[in-house]
Amino acid sequence: MAAPIDFYFEFASPYGYLASLRIDSIAAAHGREVTWRPIMLGAALKRTGSQPNVNAPLKGEYLRRDVPRFARLLDAPLVFPPVLPMNSLAASRAYWWLFEQDEDLAKGLAQAIYHAHWGEGRDLSEPEAVAEVAATLGIGREELLAAVQDPRIKARLKEETDRSIERGVFGSPFFLVDDEPFWGADRLDQVERWLATGGW
Amino acid sequence: MAAPIDFYFEFASPYGYLASLRIDSIAAAHGREVTWRPIMLGAALKRTGSQPNVNAPLKGEYLRRDVPRFARLLDAPLVFPPVLPMNSLAASRAYWWLFEQDEDLAKGLAQAIYHAHWGEGRDLSEPEAVAEVAATLGIGREELLAAVQDPRIKARLKEETDRSIERGVFGSPFFLVDDEPFWGADRLDQVERWLATGGW
Repeated sequence: MAAPIDFYFEFASPYGYLASLRIDSIAAAHGREVTWRPIMLGAALKRTGSQPNVNAPLKGEYLRRDVPRFARLLDAPLVFPPVLPMNSLAASRAYWWLFEQDEDLAKGLAQAIYHAHWGEGRDLSEPEAVAEVAATLGIGREELLAAVQDPRIKARLKEETDRSIERGVFGSPFFLVDDEPFWGADRLDQVERWLATGGW
Repeated sequence: MAAPIDFYFEFASPYGYLASLRIDSIAAAHGREVTWRPIMLGAALKRTGSQPNVNAPLKGEYLRRDVPRFARLLDAPLVFPPVLPMNSLAASRAYWWLFEQDEDLAKGLAQAIYHAHWGEGRDLSEPEAVAEVAATLGIGREELLAAVQDPRIKARLKEETDRSIERGVFGSPFFLVDDEPFWGADRLDQVERWLATGGW
């Protein structure tokens, strides 16, 4: 079986959220699995000399129009969170902690975090807020709060982020299909075609 | 009849080139015309704190892979020009000079410039190179070389660029469909759907 598709994303990214709603079913239709890889995008933005789009003049205003329009097209719930961009450190660390134990549960947590943050507009910058979302999946609150402070988990997230930059990732969402890179929720149609045709 | 769609673009932008190959036929299928509006994107990039993608670390490498892949999908000729980004001042001024006399001929020149620059990889930073392309359309060389130095034409390009920023344009290509903004060659499917449905 072919290797999983790597789906790199930042929890604070609305386009990552929109893509997260589609990538698994697109992959499954072509017999492929997806490894979800949350990263801290700030590191790559520093490298490319960018800032979060939501804060950029002109771009930020466009994003506030484009994202809801895109969400309506996908029939996806969307409420802009109060703090933009949120600090995704706790959410990302919680993911990688779970990932080491149970990849499916980790993906479920990522989906729940995305839904709470972008579907319901909740700020999940604080570890407690992430723990609250995780609790709905039966994940222990105290264990999660300890894990996001664990030096080993902190290092894991840093390694994943460093590795993503080595692989050329600079935005969210970013897909690597057998090392073929695709950037953006609007590249999913090309990802789908790539999977169907084996490339062009 | 509805107002024309405004198609804002920068001649140095490969995604502007790719979009230019599709926008007129998409619009025509829905009974709409397109006004082509070349601008100097540098002014907007300064506003958003961006730099040309082709020169950005990580982004530049991705662009050199994504653009040819996108072109193959559209069956569009593509040769990367030697100088990136080229200086599009002469090309843009020549366009607006012609536009005041004959909009169709101006569009023909824009298409010829895009084809020469991105389809054949020719550098058109110098007025003489633009005049050479224009000559193939029967446009007088001496008149063009004089026009691109004409203060009135220089002012026209500056006004168009300033106006684009006022309207929220910060990238290339950028489409305004009855004031609804769409950014990117990868938003053309949404433009098409917007025209077909009247919005969603």
